[in-house]
Amino acid sequence: MASDLLKNITYPADLRQLSISDLPQLAKELREFIIDIVATKEGHLGASLGVVELTIAIHYVFDTPTDQLVWDVGHQAYGHKILTGRKEIFHTNRQFGGISGFPKRSESVYDTFGTGHSSTSISAALGMAIASQLKGETNKHHIAVIGDASIASGMAFEGLNHGGVTDSNLLVILNDNAIGIDPSVGALKEYLTNVKVNKRLAHNNIIKALNFDYTGPVDGHDFEALITELRRLKAIKGPKFLHVITTKGKGLKQAEEDQVTYHAPGKFDKLTGERIIKKDTEPQPPKYQDVFGHTLVTLAQQNPKIVGITPAMPTGSSMKYMISAFPERAFDVGIAEQHAVTLAAGMATQGMIPFCNIYSTFLQRAYDQVIHDVAIQDLPVIFCLDRAGLVGADGATHHGVYDLAYLNCIPNLIIAAPRNEVALRNMMYSAQEGLEHPIAIRYPRGKGVLVDWEQPFESIPIGTGECLQEGTKVAVLSLGTIANNVTEAIYELKDSSNLIGHYDLRFLKPLDEQLLHTIFSSYSHIVTVEDGCLTGGFGQTIVTFANDNGYSQKIIQLGVPDQFIEHGSTDLLQEICKIDVSSIKTTIQSIIN
Amino acid sequence: MASDLLKNITYPADLRQLSISDLPQLAKELREFIIDIVATKEGHLGASLGVVELTIAIHYVFDTPTDQLVWDVGHQAYGHKILTGRKEIFHTNRQFGGISGFPKRSESVYDTFGTGHSSTSISAALGMAIASQLKGETNKHHIAVIGDASIASGMAFEGLNHGGVTDSNLLVILNDNAIGIDPSVGALKEYLTNVKVNKRLAHNNIIKALNFDYTGPVDGHDFEALITELRRLKAIKGPKFLHVITTKGKGLKQAEEDQVTYHAPGKFDKLTGERIIKKDTEPQPPKYQDVFGHTLVTLAQQNPKIVGITPAMPTGSSMKYMISAFPERAFDVGIAEQHAVTLAAGMATQGMIPFCNIYSTFLQRAYDQVIHDVAIQDLPVIFCLDRAGLVGADGATHHGVYDLAYLNCIPNLIIAAPRNEVALRNMMYSAQEGLEHPIAIRYPRGKGVLVDWEQPFESIPIGTGECLQEGTKVAVLSLGTIANNVTEAIYELKDSSNLIGHYDLRFLKPLDEQLLHTIFSSYSHIVTVEDGCLTGGFGQTIVTFANDNGYSQKIIQLGVPDQFIEHGSTDLLQEICKIDVSSIKTTIQSIIN
Repeated sequence: MASDLLKNITYPADLRQLSISDLPQLAKELREFIIDIVATKEGHLGASLGVVELTIAIHYVFDTPTDQLVWDVGHQAYGHKILTGRKEIFHTNRQFGGISGFPKRSESVYDTFGTGHSSTSISAALGMAIASQLKGETNKHHIAVIGDASIASGMAFEGLNHGGVTDSNLLVILNDNAIGIDPSVGALKEYLTNVKVNKRLAHNNIIKALNFDYTGPVDGHDFEALITELRRLKAIKGPKFLHVITTKGKGLKQAEEDQVTYHAPGKFDKLTGERIIKKDTEPQPPKYQDVFGHTLVTLAQQNPKIVGITPAMPTGSSMKYMISAFPERAFDVGIAEQHAVTLAAGMATQGMIPFCNIYSTFLQRAYDQVIHDVAIQDLPVIFCLDRAGLVGADGATHHGVYDLAYLNCIPNLIIAAPRNEVALRNMMYSAQEGLEHPIAIRYPRGKGVLVDWEQPFESIPIGTGECLQEGTKVAVLSLGTIANNVTEAIYELKDSSNLIGHYDLRFLKPLDEQLLHTIFSSYSHIVTVEDGCLTGGFGQTIVTFANDNGYSQKIIQLGVPDQFIEHGSTDLLQEICKIDVSSIKTTIQSIIN
Repeated sequence: MASDLLKNITYPADLRQLSISDLPQLAKELREFIIDIVATKEGHLGASLGVVELTIAIHYVFDTPTDQLVWDVGHQAYGHKILTGRKEIFHTNRQFGGISGFPKRSESVYDTFGTGHSSTSISAALGMAIASQLKGETNKHHIAVIGDASIASGMAFEGLNHGGVTDSNLLVILNDNAIGIDPSVGALKEYLTNVKVNKRLAHNNIIKALNFDYTGPVDGHDFEALITELRRLKAIKGPKFLHVITTKGKGLKQAEEDQVTYHAPGKFDKLTGERIIKKDTEPQPPKYQDVFGHTLVTLAQQNPKIVGITPAMPTGSSMKYMISAFPERAFDVGIAEQHAVTLAAGMATQGMIPFCNIYSTFLQRAYDQVIHDVAIQDLPVIFCLDRAGLVGADGATHHGVYDLAYLNCIPNLIIAAPRNEVALRNMMYSAQEGLEHPIAIRYPRGKGVLVDWEQPFESIPIGTGECLQEGTKVAVLSLGTIANNVTEAIYELKDSSNLIGHYDLRFLKPLDEQLLHTIFSSYSHIVTVEDGCLTGGFGQTIVTFANDNGYSQKIIQLGVPDQFIEHGSTDLLQEICKIDVSSIKTTIQSIIN
């Protein structure tokens, strides 16, 4: 395909040499460039396709990187990356050592603020704008581009509420495509839909009420309209708000029609748009997400008190099965983790049994609510923490490695981690059997290890671990699915396997102290393995148990070190953290030899 | 004074026997009752005085406790407590073993949801309302009473955004008195002021836009108006919103005129309203808050890059001094911890040096922002964590005992805890001297230990501890102001003081490993003391250091156990946690004898 304009553009300064009439051609080429690469390298597609014109228009009108542009979440920043010096390395997107799938300050001066989680852009851009004012930079512009799903999160409201009483040079651009990863929900979304349908300013304008200079809605695929409006707003001081309507996936038929799937479609045919789905010749283990989703439906069929809650991740978490089976008892509350947790607490006071499914790093958004609304009141909310452990290509913002540490210090909370699909099902089953405390069950992203996973439910007594293999010299203690790496490492050491014990603790809290006494009385060497940060995690809990009970074995702790881990394949990242099969094997070998 | 009506009221059912014309007399008696007791027992005054009529009206119209009433924050729930079975024990308010200063589920069936932190009421009440629907309870009402400062927090917006698309039986009552603890701020507040001034529905009605049935503003001290409106709303299904205007401190002249001071005035003369301020005959140590506030001003005079940020606590944190000295460089952003942290991050990207002052338990609200926006990007934001450790009468929701644990697992973050006022000043000084990482400096509520605290600044090298006293047998390692208890305990053991070493580690992270090697090589016994939770805290970090470096001393860890600690005097709570002088002394004695 022809790509005459894009090939001459390395930075936005090059782009600004074009005439407005050239921009549709550039947009076409940029779309093709994104599609070409994402088709084979995978990544987030729909969001970036939707903002191709908006991206070009912003860089065309504003003097980036002097003017500060903040992308919310960052799924939509591929076009931005390509136009800001990273065209030649864009094919390394999300790969280890390559560029990040999100804006990242260390990667480019055009990436003014790192993202990954949503709804931070208004606060960040406002901070920049206020700093500019204090430094006397009167002509600098600060732009936050935020989606309609993200702006409904409380944090974005806090940013608007503050921004509206400043005279800072802040432009908030609402990229309204009526969808986040799943379709947007909530009263604000209905309000925005109403604005769009009426094609004019609605009567009760929330944004005007918050003291922003509101314009819109503007067609986000119309360069003339966009550029005219951006230029007009550039000349206005104070907090401004531009409401832009776009179509997620714009320019690729399938991506426009199936926006949820094409948010991140995996590999696809760049010409036809059809997804390339590898057919497995043998039955494969399910994703943990689907184990959660189907098990919840099964349990809900038996127990009418069960309800499901997801903050904007019905597809990613597989809560969609519950929403489909029991629409009255399943709630997608939008990007609102704080509300999700306290809503669950409110339901629990009335005897309901809420399964509140939140990604491990997103629960960081509701940390206070877990302590203040759930744990202090000892309400039996069941947290299912998806994406626990290293998640791979999404990188540092998404690795769910802090949950064990930040949850362990909370009184009343039970913390569990299944090692496989059957254990996940049984923990979910056990949790809804009249538990009188809150519980967090953490499990990783992606595929499990068992093909035959739909076993009859069995109760797991709270706070009990399990001996997987007895040995005589070294005991390996693991928590969660990392047990499978341990099992494989021990298998590879089969000549010495009688020396090696393996214990799945299953619960970080309460600890199975009886089992630990047995272990510490029987083995001269102890190794702990976890798919989480070492500081404050499972290993240190075992070390403290040993100290407090007078055991003197030195304990080797394997886990994620005290540094942020970048993006890359999960296997590679496990290797870096020395919790892959080979590293575990080496550690055990160093003891038994 | 006459108290004929109140004496016959134990529960709301009694109240409902009165005629509306009796209610003003009851309100008068209830105010006097609150004033009488708070005048001598201390507590939160202004908020409860402001909602006397509203409290009576709600219980009069609705069938509590079947109908579920949720108070936001809970400062204003004294009248509610007195009218719901706790009149006779109200004098035990906030005392150890007495009733809590906040609503508490374990205390009364009328306290449907425990609070302390703000902005949770809409989510909680909505959860209850949805549960009722699922259970087929069609005539049950769910009422959230929330202040105008609290409703501006993002979490409340999330609750409204969800509530507006349900048909649940939810009534949100906005208690609009234009003040939280300090005067409310932000665009929403300006909007509400506009509504009040115009005495009618403003043009851009945010609440209507969010699909709530809005009524107001109504005079919150007018029984006829309140009851008429509540009765009308009771008959309407779906999400409803009543905007009520009240005066904080209503009925006590000083409390109406000086609303900030009379939020919690301490002891006062119940007849004249004048505060009873004990005159000290000798100079007293300052509050840590004032050390922070004055030091920040001093540093800001020398360093133009410094800015101050507080989420709604200018008085409580003493950020008010910075706001007064440098109004352009100090920001009260309202109850918006998430925004406060990311705003600081945005400023830091532009080379500013933000001092972001947040109470220890309120930072739980911005945990993800600390990780995602500050630490991952390694931005040098300076967090000053006020109210760290046990706080006394505010109880379980306010004890800042989790910060060390939840922060320690975050890479890049420096964690410091001064043992006195001079150390706090020097840590603040050191932090703004071009530090290239974020830092958290935690210190407690209340009075320090030094009269002569304004010493010249000295840099404290990051990650260094200090030997306060050398010994030969037992080393006591402390972090933060709890050092003063250790010093006193050692003083009381002066006959054996040559045996006892005392080390102030000053930094949890990075640890002073060199000092620790010296200590572990020199002492046979180690004790750690911290004013925070044991799980994941300072002591466990020392235990892990010992394990990892092959030291075999058993380490006794003193700190807050794994349970929620209730309200009471700080001294008493320290005793319960065995970190008071006497317990520390006993622990040391058991080793040296």
